[in-house]
Amino acid sequence: MSEIHRPRIGIIGTGAIGGFYGLMLARAGYDVHFLLRSEFAVVSERGLRVDSAVHGELLLNPVQAYREAAQMPPCDWLLVGAKTTSNADLAPLIAQAAAPDAKVVLLQNGLGVEEALRPLLPEGLHLIGGLCYICAHRRAPGEVVHQALGGVNLGYHSGPAIDAAERQAILESGCEMFRQAGLESTAMANLDQARWQKLVWNVPYNGLSVLLDAGTEALMGQADSRALIRSIMLEVVQGAEACGHAMPPGLADKLLVMTERMSDYLPSMYHDHLSRRPLELPAIYAAPLSAAEAKGQDMPCTRALYQALSFLSEGRV
Amino acid sequence: MSEIHRPRIGIIGTGAIGGFYGLMLARAGYDVHFLLRSEFAVVSERGLRVDSAVHGELLLNPVQAYREAAQMPPCDWLLVGAKTTSNADLAPLIAQAAAPDAKVVLLQNGLGVEEALRPLLPEGLHLIGGLCYICAHRRAPGEVVHQALGGVNLGYHSGPAIDAAERQAILESGCEMFRQAGLESTAMANLDQARWQKLVWNVPYNGLSVLLDAGTEALMGQADSRALIRSIMLEVVQGAEACGHAMPPGLADKLLVMTERMSDYLPSMYHDHLSRRPLELPAIYAAPLSAAEAKGQDMPCTRALYQALSFLSEGRV
Repeated sequence: MSEIHRPRIGIIGTGAIGGFYGLMLARAGYDVHFLLRSEFAVVSERGLRVDSAVHGELLLNPVQAYREAAQMPPCDWLLVGAKTTSNADLAPLIAQAAAPDAKVVLLQNGLGVEEALRPLLPEGLHLIGGLCYICAHRRAPGEVVHQALGGVNLGYHSGPAIDAAERQAILESGCEMFRQAGLESTAMANLDQARWQKLVWNVPYNGLSVLLDAGTEALMGQADSRALIRSIMLEVVQGAEACGHAMPPGLADKLLVMTERMSDYLPSMYHDHLSRRPLELPAIYAAPLSAAEAKGQDMPCTRALYQALSFLSEGRV
Repeated sequence: MSEIHRPRIGIIGTGAIGGFYGLMLARAGYDVHFLLRSEFAVVSERGLRVDSAVHGELLLNPVQAYREAAQMPPCDWLLVGAKTTSNADLAPLIAQAAAPDAKVVLLQNGLGVEEALRPLLPEGLHLIGGLCYICAHRRAPGEVVHQALGGVNLGYHSGPAIDAAERQAILESGCEMFRQAGLESTAMANLDQARWQKLVWNVPYNGLSVLLDAGTEALMGQADSRALIRSIMLEVVQGAEACGHAMPPGLADKLLVMTERMSDYLPSMYHDHLSRRPLELPAIYAAPLSAAEAKGQDMPCTRALYQALSFLSEGRV
């Protein structure tokens, strides 16, 4: 029973990402409230499970679970772990669950996701981007498999008129929550830069897992697919730098080595494709291609991959 | 019973291509001999069928069919309709069936196929490349479906020391055979140019049909895949021109229009993939990429497609 003020956290979208981070924060003593839909009954009855290769078998039970955002208490932080493709539908739910000056963190990949959501949110809310470096997927209702990693980098997007020091303080307080939960977390000076940096991994692996029906192990185990991944990574680095965001030196090769050391991983887009859900093509492909193109930077392999994925997902809304 | 000298033609590889052209030439009165393996019994018994959207239901019966090249009479022309991936195995059979100064025509796609086969053939043989503009596939043993087109462009590769006029005369006599069979045929001044020109179609459609599990109709019916096809075509045109082979103006757009007007077509590589046969990646992808690279011309989308196809076909020999 801590006397320290613990912010109240709401989880919007309790899939693999929302479930994992929500459980980890609740386990660290935060007051966490989960908005659920199809999984409400299972999670209310049996709790939320995370089978983690890092932290062991974790169970949160009981769970403060809600069917409706309007029933949630006002939350200081809202973590949005749903897919970018559903953000427009989630905006009113975020507004309902938010305290007046809440911080909304989009734990999502891709570029331009805050720009798209911002006009749909009350002006008083702070909007923050969160880049999750994690291998996790949903195994069954209320059950998340956490394979590796788990860090979260935060970058400030927009909110009420405050100065840079206050923005930084908000980011630091967010990072501190994740650190309290045993997770690495860094405040990034520039959100777009953070998003680009994460895309260097997502652009090749998400799309190629769908196109080639393969996980990271198979993709890294063959010389041609490995070379293709590297070419695409280097294009994304060039795109980022054309947009004014310097990437860490040797980023592509570091990510290749990191991925090779991971156990086999099927990115979220693979699962979305398998389940015939919409693919996050606008945020992960169209937005960075368009941003780079506006700076005169072509990304031909990335564009080819995007076009192939668009063909495969045509007609899926 | 024509008194005119009709050259004797041997067909090596009686699949869709060998079957179609062999039957058409036999129908025009040529003396055509077919080397068959798995289809020998069926074709000997029931003949060779071509179900043609252009020429109607055609049947050649009886067929001068052989199980062994050594049993064939010496042929003046040998048409090789097998896949490039089996050329090395076919070289001794070609030599056995050939008259001393025979003309060997490789009715095959890709670049560098004559260079690879030439050292395996007797020096006295003329080697010619044939580019078939045809939509055809094998429906069953001894049965070919001919959907559209049928033209053959010929280019001289190598042979006994003769002058340019004699080479041209040989090409013209080959074209005349095909014309006698009711097919368009043009003698090309430069074989590599003819091969590059054909690749402008094959590079995008063959690979994308495999990668996206789709025929021409679906690929042309979606804006992204159509744009991707066009990008790849333009890369192949650039590759050709970097290698010194001017392409006809507006070739890519003409091919797009032509393909759109065709009925749905699944290229040969699609059938090869479906049947888990080796894909013609060396001739259709590796050779042009390497030739263009040697001239400093990058073909990034083509390379990406090649790498993706290599991943898919890994382990298939």
